[in-house]
Amino acid sequence: MSSAPGYFVSFEGGDGVGKTTHVRLLGEFLHEATGREVVVTREPGGTGLGTELRRLVMHGDDMDPRTEALLYAADRAHHVATVVRPALERGAVVVTDRYLDSSVAYQAGGRELSEEEVEALSLWATDDLLPDVTVLLDLDPQVGAARLSGEPDRLERAGDEFHRRTRETFLRRAAADPRRWVVVDASAGLDDVQAQVRVDVAARLDLTPVVQEAVTEPVAEPDEAGATGEARA
Amino acid sequence: MSSAPGYFVSFEGGDGVGKTTHVRLLGEFLHEATGREVVVTREPGGTGLGTELRRLVMHGDDMDPRTEALLYAADRAHHVATVVRPALERGAVVVTDRYLDSSVAYQAGGRELSEEEVEALSLWATDDLLPDVTVLLDLDPQVGAARLSGEPDRLERAGDEFHRRTRETFLRRAAADPRRWVVVDASAGLDDVQAQVRVDVAARLDLTPVVQEAVTEPVAEPDEAGATGEARA
Repeated sequence: MSSAPGYFVSFEGGDGVGKTTHVRLLGEFLHEATGREVVVTREPGGTGLGTELRRLVMHGDDMDPRTEALLYAADRAHHVATVVRPALERGAVVVTDRYLDSSVAYQAGGRELSEEEVEALSLWATDDLLPDVTVLLDLDPQVGAARLSGEPDRLERAGDEFHRRTRETFLRRAAADPRRWVVVDASAGLDDVQAQVRVDVAARLDLTPVVQEAVTEPVAEPDEAGATGEARA
Repeated sequence: MSSAPGYFVSFEGGDGVGKTTHVRLLGEFLHEATGREVVVTREPGGTGLGTELRRLVMHGDDMDPRTEALLYAADRAHHVATVVRPALERGAVVVTDRYLDSSVAYQAGGRELSEEEVEALSLWATDDLLPDVTVLLDLDPQVGAARLSGEPDRLERAGDEFHRRTRETFLRRAAADPRRWVVVDASAGLDDVQAQVRVDVAARLDLTPVVQEAVTEPVAEPDEAGATGEARA
């Protein structure tokens, strides 16, 4: 948890769950609702250096798991030092598409590194900066893959298992730290999912009643958004 | 200490002490003396990825100490995984120009990171691979600077202090772990220094008597090299 005056929100989840869209929509909502500066960003590659590191990791030579984990950690360290922390200290809201939990789920899940060591590496890289809220957009990996490619069966066996394990890791981490995480079912329509994200994030950030009211305004089918908003009121 | 059949030797010391030359000369000597394959390498930048990381660290944007330490650690992890460890497993001798002690001396010395955390990061990156022998070429930084530039007073005050602190860190680490380190006075002539390096490294690696004899062959002034060789016999 950051001690800076801003708010730090991360989104996690597999490919095809709609993270990029929901990060942007939540950013717009939080800007309108709070009047604060909102910084929408991502990992890896949220900085100039990060873009080069992302290219090295994704398109360079094969590399061993430790090298890969260290490059992601370097990207994160630079992102936090030059983008996230300065914004939080200005009182801004930072919404990032992936953060340290992605490293734990993808780099430790089933490879030679343990979750504990990958997490410790990221915590060292960021000088222990954890998000105030982490939104898990949860979805069956086969559905996510279908959204991306239109063909669910294009995921071959090994990849399928990898994505199932990644999802389980996210869900297990969310269950273990419910103060930081909110889990949103991403199988619904975009507006429904975004409405739920707004309700849950606003509640966790303990935003003012004004914002709580804004949450109930129709961003989705009026009935559902209203009902959810009332349940939180 | 490596459990592989090869030998792993690192050189450390400030700029201008002659590391590159002595690494090469020791490599040639060990190849002739043992008949083994010898791999002469360096950090940072001993691999293709390392060359790109070296460029990012040395010529890219300013970066915070954690990002810098993580990039050096990523370079080291890749270097060990793709060059050093495979060579040691083939039974080769690996001689590297700088290794983890340079990170401790340069990245922790007087900046915001502790020696302990920088060392722990490198040990994680390399899966605990330490050299069998580390040669410290020790020299007054002002003399080293004079060798590089021809003008000892070109080192301004702050840089001067930084290099003094770095030297002290190397000397302190060598004193704390005399089983791994040998300290060679690098103020003598090149041949004298190399003769001392050969004697000390051969003794530490417990090479065969054949090699011990080879050490006494004239690589420097015959008298000195002979005398030193006898003292070790």
